[in-house]
Amino acid sequence: MKGAEALLRTLLAGGVDVCFTNPGTSEMQFVAAVDRVPAMRGVLALFEGVATGAADGYARMADRPAATLLHLGPGLANGLANLHNARRAGSPIINIVGEHATRHLAYDAPLTSDIAGLAGPVSGWVRTSAGASTIAADTAAAVAAASQPPGQIATLITPADATWDECAGPAPVPQAAPPARADEARIRAAVQALRSGEPALLLLGGRALRDPALEHAGRIADHCGARLSSTTFVARQQRGAGRVPTERLPYFVEPALAALGEVRHLILVGAPAPVAFFAYPGLPSSLVPAGTQVHQLAAPDEDLADALERLADAVGARSPARRLALARPELPSGALDPLTIAQAVAALLPEQCVVVDESATSGWALLGATAGSPPHDWLMLTGGAIGDGLPMAVGAAIASPGRRVLTLQADGSAAYTLQALWTQAREQLDVTTVIYANRAYRILEVEYTRTESGQRPGPRASQLLSIGQPDLGWAQIARGMGVPATRVETLADFNRTLQGYLREPGPNLIEVMI
Amino acid sequence: MKGAEALLRTLLAGGVDVCFTNPGTSEMQFVAAVDRVPAMRGVLALFEGVATGAADGYARMADRPAATLLHLGPGLANGLANLHNARRAGSPIINIVGEHATRHLAYDAPLTSDIAGLAGPVSGWVRTSAGASTIAADTAAAVAAASQPPGQIATLITPADATWDECAGPAPVPQAAPPARADEARIRAAVQALRSGEPALLLLGGRALRDPALEHAGRIADHCGARLSSTTFVARQQRGAGRVPTERLPYFVEPALAALGEVRHLILVGAPAPVAFFAYPGLPSSLVPAGTQVHQLAAPDEDLADALERLADAVGARSPARRLALARPELPSGALDPLTIAQAVAALLPEQCVVVDESATSGWALLGATAGSPPHDWLMLTGGAIGDGLPMAVGAAIASPGRRVLTLQADGSAAYTLQALWTQAREQLDVTTVIYANRAYRILEVEYTRTESGQRPGPRASQLLSIGQPDLGWAQIARGMGVPATRVETLADFNRTLQGYLREPGPNLIEVMI
Repeated sequence: MKGAEALLRTLLAGGVDVCFTNPGTSEMQFVAAVDRVPAMRGVLALFEGVATGAADGYARMADRPAATLLHLGPGLANGLANLHNARRAGSPIINIVGEHATRHLAYDAPLTSDIAGLAGPVSGWVRTSAGASTIAADTAAAVAAASQPPGQIATLITPADATWDECAGPAPVPQAAPPARADEARIRAAVQALRSGEPALLLLGGRALRDPALEHAGRIADHCGARLSSTTFVARQQRGAGRVPTERLPYFVEPALAALGEVRHLILVGAPAPVAFFAYPGLPSSLVPAGTQVHQLAAPDEDLADALERLADAVGARSPARRLALARPELPSGALDPLTIAQAVAALLPEQCVVVDESATSGWALLGATAGSPPHDWLMLTGGAIGDGLPMAVGAAIASPGRRVLTLQADGSAAYTLQALWTQAREQLDVTTVIYANRAYRILEVEYTRTESGQRPGPRASQLLSIGQPDLGWAQIARGMGVPATRVETLADFNRTLQGYLREPGPNLIEVMI
Repeated sequence: MKGAEALLRTLLAGGVDVCFTNPGTSEMQFVAAVDRVPAMRGVLALFEGVATGAADGYARMADRPAATLLHLGPGLANGLANLHNARRAGSPIINIVGEHATRHLAYDAPLTSDIAGLAGPVSGWVRTSAGASTIAADTAAAVAAASQPPGQIATLITPADATWDECAGPAPVPQAAPPARADEARIRAAVQALRSGEPALLLLGGRALRDPALEHAGRIADHCGARLSSTTFVARQQRGAGRVPTERLPYFVEPALAALGEVRHLILVGAPAPVAFFAYPGLPSSLVPAGTQVHQLAAPDEDLADALERLADAVGARSPARRLALARPELPSGALDPLTIAQAVAALLPEQCVVVDESATSGWALLGATAGSPPHDWLMLTGGAIGDGLPMAVGAAIASPGRRVLTLQADGSAAYTLQALWTQAREQLDVTTVIYANRAYRILEVEYTRTESGQRPGPRASQLLSIGQPDLGWAQIARGMGVPATRVETLADFNRTLQGYLREPGPNLIEVMI
């Protein structure tokens, strides 16, 4: 058996059966092996940022890693931004990155580059396979590394000779170790904080935003009168009717400080201590108010549900958590704007929908509107590297057959990785995309005004913040990628189109002119 | 003056007056400064790979660096693949990469990453500015570093506080040092080789493919009966009627070995010793035949024209070089295929056209057909990181006002960075793009067959090598980006459309169904 086939079979042994890829000549052995290993699903992307973003979305919904197969340093480079987001989400991913045959490297052929150097900043684990004799064991180690709680990025660099030489076959993949239990002292400290009578807030991140952890957190909050908040950006949160409600930490520094101002005990559960997304002159970097004690109940790589359950027991929170009732708004009427769009989404959101939210400034009304919609999952941009919405929807859909994916997408961010629409079409994924076409990097217009003491950008600066002139024709572009699409300019059209599209199998796209 | 403005003014002092950018919040000081420094032309890209590819194309045509302005690690990451190509082309580029304010880094905010680590593999020079007091001097050093022969990539990382704090103003930029002269011993060795009576070939790279170096090389070849060849991929070659003709080293190993088989003296002029693009089992990595002596006349960073002139004098080559006569083919008739497309291009190529060639397998007939077309420049993908054609055309057009740019573009590669079309539309650049729509990564189908001992890919492998299902609608996509476009299915339509489009101001695109 050739090394490439042993690698694929080892991935399968480790439960990894989807590979998002854009291969090249140095990966041709893998392409050939795909014909011999039909259990491995190869999904082609027209750009590597789509492949890595899809792997992120897959991991968030499947709770296990997908592989990517990337072409040398440049292929990896094109995927780095969405790997950055995946790293911040704690998503397990196994990157297989082709490399020149070992003996070829000395010649510095045009595609030669420092692949390990490129992989380092986004990877928790990097290895270059020494040859076919170790490639299966290397793959097993990569699967184990990726699966390390909460999930991390493992990059295996595979010289071409390691893939085309013969080897003994696949290697066994060790069972992933469960997450560590939080130290008992942390539980005790949190108990003390919650019993202090002073205002407390549990800040939830990672798996703490899903049952059973969320249920335990809700019980604690209800029993102790503590507040419950998610981080500003969530990798995946279970929301909607029947779920435990949370606040969300605001994005901008001033409202975030206001939200936390009264809190005396900030209890971190799989979340880092809150910090400003960007620094601003005269504003603090840390969002922890002076006089607030920070308690880390459990770190992101620890067992969050276990820690919360123990804390709930310790404080005597035995009643089931308060959960949200089903409360769908009516279909809205009036102007087409971010608020009415949010109301329409809330009115029509399908049961068990997977919402991919890269709506940026246009999405401000979505969380409030959908709080009582049928149960759904909410996925967000976690690392600030824009352009992961459309790709993440690809992976989320592949991980969640039978569930509709709804991508709520800012136009500027969408332009980064619009090639994802083609993969949605090829794989006939049940993804509906709503493009908020405001033809601007609106967040940057806001940030400009903050930076320049309230001034509006001048004409030349405005050109760098606007993506009009010319306007992008999203419906045209989507059709050019094989995705049925409609441009809407009225709320009635939006209501009608969204209602229809959510029921139609396969992908579709609504360009909403706001 | 704020640091951001001092940086822009220092760039201008160094002759850098174009900046390709996609800025973010951490770069907002630069955006504001653009309003105060109108001599700096800011060109917005919807994706950073467009910005860096444009900077590469600009450098190749302007012979001086443009700047890029990129948003933190992910923005740089998105631009790395085309920086890899630029590095291989020896293009000078100055990357300005925003970074969090220094005091913010300790908090590991979501967008924090190892920017210097990401920059290293593509940069000849990397520095993180210590603050506003040094940012102008850092910028001057970056300009000097980028301008180091033959040109290299300099990356300056600018913490936000360095851009918003006050400083003393711009810094002077030292004059770039001229390239070093080749050692006299190298000239003597080449003279001896050329006088040996044994077959000799001059392999030209970099500036050796442009006058005056090319003229000197032609004189030498004519006088000594030596062959003249370019590298397989050229950063920029002056071609066509009135220019000195060269062979081109074939891409695949077997024909390359055949082309060099008889050569006893291989004289390198700004070119590396020839090497296979990829390694294959049973084929050599080096393309230098056994028994061939390699002589390096001048390294890429040395003065190639000077070395060739000295060599020409030393061998007594005093007659002007043979130059190609104008020989335009008629407009072709018959089927629409790569040969007739090449003939039509040759028949219609405008005087002083800038040809950007990322045609891959579809372009095999172009060089032969256009040899006698009016004088033109030919730019190619130098680093194998596909997706630099459309962006490079942006930069080449901005560097070459009054000249038509013709991009000959494979469809699979075009999909990587198709956002470049939007910048072409916004800047109303005179760029005509021909998309060879064969709906496949054809080169990979060839490589598969080579890898798998002549076998054709099976159905599952085929899916990973084809970009049909669904077909991309390039004309639709281009219109969605604001570029007038036509799909053609007959040669008569292609002839007519190309003729019209080459005369129309602004960008346009022809989707050629082959």
